[in-house]
Amino acid sequence: MDVRLALIGFGNVGKGVASLLHGEGERYRTEYGVRLVLTGVADQGGAAVNLEGLDGFNLLEAKKRHGTVAAARDGVQGLQGAHFLERAAAHVLLEAASTNFEDAEPGWTYVREALALKMDVVLASKGVLVLHYGHLMRIAMDRGARVLFSGTVGAPLPVLELADRVLVGAQISGFEGILNATSNYILSLMADGATYEESVRRAQELGIAETDPTLDVDGWDAAAKAAIVANAVMGAQLSLQDVEREGIRHVTPEMLSHARQEGQTLKLIARARRTAGGVSAQVVAERRPLADVLGRLQGAEMGIVYHTDPLGTVSATVQQVGGIPTALTVLRDVINLARDRGWSSPSQA
Amino acid sequence: MDVRLALIGFGNVGKGVASLLHGEGERYRTEYGVRLVLTGVADQGGAAVNLEGLDGFNLLEAKKRHGTVAAARDGVQGLQGAHFLERAAAHVLLEAASTNFEDAEPGWTYVREALALKMDVVLASKGVLVLHYGHLMRIAMDRGARVLFSGTVGAPLPVLELADRVLVGAQISGFEGILNATSNYILSLMADGATYEESVRRAQELGIAETDPTLDVDGWDAAAKAAIVANAVMGAQLSLQDVEREGIRHVTPEMLSHARQEGQTLKLIARARRTAGGVSAQVVAERRPLADVLGRLQGAEMGIVYHTDPLGTVSATVQQVGGIPTALTVLRDVINLARDRGWSSPSQA
Repeated sequence: MDVRLALIGFGNVGKGVASLLHGEGERYRTEYGVRLVLTGVADQGGAAVNLEGLDGFNLLEAKKRHGTVAAARDGVQGLQGAHFLERAAAHVLLEAASTNFEDAEPGWTYVREALALKMDVVLASKGVLVLHYGHLMRIAMDRGARVLFSGTVGAPLPVLELADRVLVGAQISGFEGILNATSNYILSLMADGATYEESVRRAQELGIAETDPTLDVDGWDAAAKAAIVANAVMGAQLSLQDVEREGIRHVTPEMLSHARQEGQTLKLIARARRTAGGVSAQVVAERRPLADVLGRLQGAEMGIVYHTDPLGTVSATVQQVGGIPTALTVLRDVINLARDRGWSSPSQA
Repeated sequence: MDVRLALIGFGNVGKGVASLLHGEGERYRTEYGVRLVLTGVADQGGAAVNLEGLDGFNLLEAKKRHGTVAAARDGVQGLQGAHFLERAAAHVLLEAASTNFEDAEPGWTYVREALALKMDVVLASKGVLVLHYGHLMRIAMDRGARVLFSGTVGAPLPVLELADRVLVGAQISGFEGILNATSNYILSLMADGATYEESVRRAQELGIAETDPTLDVDGWDAAAKAAIVANAVMGAQLSLQDVEREGIRHVTPEMLSHARQEGQTLKLIARARRTAGGVSAQVVAERRPLADVLGRLQGAEMGIVYHTDPLGTVSATVQQVGGIPTALTVLRDVINLARDRGWSSPSQA
């Protein structure tokens, strides 16, 4: 069937979603029996809406030339909020606005409005999840809506899918992971002798680090991911400030070279574990053996290790991230949702 | 809702299923909103059937004392085949008979009978999958039935789940893995200097290798898994004899020690890749760097590496297998199936 999508935010992730639907939509239709139709896109300047499906190429052109999708063929200046959602008549809201750890806006307002309309929600940004997790899930349950967010925790690393589909029937006592690729990239360069400043600059030149690398190098991004995973798979109710946090600014090439002499390295590890009081989470730059499943992750690689009973220790790593992973994981969530909802026809496989 | 299960075979896997339902059934009910009821079990001596649910403890006792579940409280001597399936009135057939690479019986007959009754099927043994894959999937599609088999390919390693739920939207160009834990255990002991014979004996003493280790050490098990994965995730139609195969009998401690001097080791690798003619698969004992994601797997560890576009290289490994993994993966398939079918109530998570 046709699954109508409304997209909030038209930055890298939003543009990636539009590009993928433009280029790969037909393949998704053949392979998964579901036609994904982008009926609305909103950014700070307004929105574009077309129930037959927006032209992704035209949206990208309008954004590039005029800075807003409101300038596209189906654009409406100033259209936002519930009015936008109602006109887009979507089955699923894709929330891909910039991550905002202060008040999670504008995502949080959009998400509540979408749930009020009984839309399902796919989140690409983390603000709502680390500030309003319990509230979000209560509203979703009341409304019978699904909320998916696999792209927020180290996509394409299968962090949430492992817990949801693979560790079924097992109990998760804790996890640890390298969930922030940027800080791991910087630490890897430093392990090869570069200074912290050189390493940050090189990561910025390659587009791996932002102009302001604070969220990555001070551990905020990893801490948000630790909270999200702990909430989603261990039943915790952690906010960002509940996560004990340190970053990598204090790490020196000398610390890394000393560690290496003992067969170890330094990694920024995000973890959570069950305690007497519930679930505690932390992000810490700590020594790991070089042969360890996390210790050996180089460059922009990421990894997750689940400790479970009775399945033992189950890990996943991503060796190499190509293309446009977050946009693709947003659509992965949509396709999995469509399958769970019975909206898709069975594929031939 | 109640999901009625009929189980074929009461060896290690079947007994594990009965034990888990006995011990953990209530937890599954709370956590996944689905009550799993074992209504029938058949072995070579007959069957036991009770629509209210069989007593797992009583089945285990009967099997231990009399060698067949037909001696249990609800037992019927000689009850088998379609008569058994009809009386068990199950939603799902669990096929856990001994793996038979000759003609896949008795599993293949049971599976066809179950599909004729529109039951879904969860396979724990590989015979049907490597001898009749195309036929099996055609019947299942005709009947609108689902066939799951995540326990056949290196459980609890998430081989099929990665492809199904995580690599959604990506294209898989190939995979390689260590999918046979026994041969990896033997190779690990040999890398530490033990002879082949000593290593096999130790693996047998620990219950890791069978009395007749042929299936493992000659690569049959790994080849079957390579065919199953290639069929399931790459659209291949390979039978067991289509897989180029070698084992580890020819490997010597000297070969491993030479490899180590060059930072390498020998591993039994199962792989498949797309070729001009379709998909080709092989099992080969080959050199891997010790730092490689597969090269570093020790003892009974297993791993899978998918090569994809555009998600890059996505891997999963299992560091330590505890408890009763295959039985648990059978129930994992059942729970995932129940969720896909809409038979389960949403959990609180």
